[in-house]
Amino acid sequence: MISVQQLKHFTRQVFLSIGFSDADADLATTVLVQADLRGVDSHGVARLAGYVRLYDHGRLNPTPDIRIVHETPSTAVVDGDRGVGLVVGPKAMQIAIGKARTAGTGWVAVRNSNHFGIAGYHAMMALEHDMIGWAMTNAAPLVAPTFSLDKLLGTNPYAVAVPALTQPPFVADFASTAVAYGKLEILQRKGLPIPPGWAQDAEGNPTTDANPLPSGGALLPLGSDREHGSHKGYGLGAIVDIFSGVLSGANYGPWVPPFATAGFMTAQEGVGSGTGHFFGAMRVDAFRPADEFKQHMDQWISAFRGARAVPGKQVLIPGDPERDMEAERGQHGIPLLEPVEKGLQTLAERFGLPWG
Amino acid sequence: MISVQQLKHFTRQVFLSIGFSDADADLATTVLVQADLRGVDSHGVARLAGYVRLYDHGRLNPTPDIRIVHETPSTAVVDGDRGVGLVVGPKAMQIAIGKARTAGTGWVAVRNSNHFGIAGYHAMMALEHDMIGWAMTNAAPLVAPTFSLDKLLGTNPYAVAVPALTQPPFVADFASTAVAYGKLEILQRKGLPIPPGWAQDAEGNPTTDANPLPSGGALLPLGSDREHGSHKGYGLGAIVDIFSGVLSGANYGPWVPPFATAGFMTAQEGVGSGTGHFFGAMRVDAFRPADEFKQHMDQWISAFRGARAVPGKQVLIPGDPERDMEAERGQHGIPLLEPVEKGLQTLAERFGLPWG
Repeated sequence: MISVQQLKHFTRQVFLSIGFSDADADLATTVLVQADLRGVDSHGVARLAGYVRLYDHGRLNPTPDIRIVHETPSTAVVDGDRGVGLVVGPKAMQIAIGKARTAGTGWVAVRNSNHFGIAGYHAMMALEHDMIGWAMTNAAPLVAPTFSLDKLLGTNPYAVAVPALTQPPFVADFASTAVAYGKLEILQRKGLPIPPGWAQDAEGNPTTDANPLPSGGALLPLGSDREHGSHKGYGLGAIVDIFSGVLSGANYGPWVPPFATAGFMTAQEGVGSGTGHFFGAMRVDAFRPADEFKQHMDQWISAFRGARAVPGKQVLIPGDPERDMEAERGQHGIPLLEPVEKGLQTLAERFGLPWG
Repeated sequence: MISVQQLKHFTRQVFLSIGFSDADADLATTVLVQADLRGVDSHGVARLAGYVRLYDHGRLNPTPDIRIVHETPSTAVVDGDRGVGLVVGPKAMQIAIGKARTAGTGWVAVRNSNHFGIAGYHAMMALEHDMIGWAMTNAAPLVAPTFSLDKLLGTNPYAVAVPALTQPPFVADFASTAVAYGKLEILQRKGLPIPPGWAQDAEGNPTTDANPLPSGGALLPLGSDREHGSHKGYGLGAIVDIFSGVLSGANYGPWVPPFATAGFMTAQEGVGSGTGHFFGAMRVDAFRPADEFKQHMDQWISAFRGARAVPGKQVLIPGDPERDMEAERGQHGIPLLEPVEKGLQTLAERFGLPWG
């Protein structure tokens, strides 16, 4: 267990050690640790060593010149100049928010970036402006489309954040797969099988192997199989890929470069620049008065949260579990798995930083 | 089997018989029969009697004053004046396309409408303008969110259409459920069970009953159960509902009025006006030159279509099956199930029209 304060201080020092400016180190730290706070451990400091490895491989520019390369009143394309997605993402989202102020909505496609942490962080930036936020990113291919033996899509998450009035906001933040890769890793570490419907083996058969990728297996799209709508999960991941990659001029599909920690993959760049993201901001009052909208969101949320549930369960609103976790961890600190803590200690030694 | 020409002629006469203008009857016919052409039989002329019943109940205005009630450079809210969604939808989508011309993107929320046919039709309107099209709609509640016993969401489909250069376009058009309701109806008619994962019974247990709704059961979101990501399908359906209903001032969640054919449901209007839709148009060259984008879409499509497949299958691009069906039915005609044909004959008698 480590306090949020300590973890942020250490993370910031690591980003400074590889040449980030003070402001960028602050921002990257906030975005990264937000994942740990919200319980998305796979996207938090567990990846810090990976970002450093990206830097070591020359794939992460610590002082990027992030710039708009094309724009219209409601759109922009941003080149991230190989900056870390944790910094490129929020800057692109700010541009979307600025466009929304004048045009009603703002939509920003980003190329030449890399892993941007949790999609929810970026989408939630819109909330304080009484805007709806969108964020999505493509990622290295781990997922087989319906009937495919080849891996052509990343887990390609998307997030949508919608403000309410007295209720907490609606924050959907989901991978377009049946399950997030982090859930396989947890069972893998415990030596346990995975349920059928999460992954397939090299021949396209259902597998319970929690580590199916090295032997040619793949994650499955949301829906798991054709009979249960996997073509819809595939379509969803494809939309995220097209918006993030094809619209921006980044890589897409099988060409998206791996995050540094995916040792079993090799980079195959060639159709664009780096990883791509897509952001959107929609001013609520571009549609109806903001208070009126937010009152109705309160009513929407109350109706869903108040639904009759199966015994022992309750109907949740997207964002509820992460917000509960954030309250708990903000107060009591963040638990670190032993391999994650070891990785951070290794970084501490390398950069001569005190650990913990 | 009936020719497309005959079916369109008859459908047009029915819309004229309930007071549509020539232009609106043409448009509604084109949209409705497009569903039959593309193989989405549940959304085609099988519903024609339902639209007439909406008219009989005073819920469908044959001569609506469809108007913009609020707008910004990239957004509009349209009041459909209880017009048929088959007409309100295309007019709203035209507004989105017009906004995109000047602002880069256009987003239109619609209230006070009703069933709009297949989402794909509206999204595909963007393609000829080198735009990406979005369309979604909420619908009467048939779906239980994860852990809920109550039905709070419709099958809430969304469609995204993306142009390519020499390849046919990418057209995703999916309900946010594990399966479209029409697939249950097919098995219901045959007296066959449904696979587990499509629906639940009144206690929230998996059911194989192909007619689970009258006894208090519900359709399941894409993902089927929590372990396989049903909370993601629920989140997706919720996003469609919020964009279509809350943003527009239509009804949402449990308050969305039933389509006329759903005899086991009663209307519970009260939080807004009619059914809601949401449309979007994004000029491709608001992001990068259109030809460059479309060349990359060709490459995207080729990579996916060329993937190694499980034996006996092939990897499809969203839109492939519907386009194949459209080619086939456009040439050979549209097969009508006996109850559908009987329903059309009843309409023919009522309005004194020749059938077939």
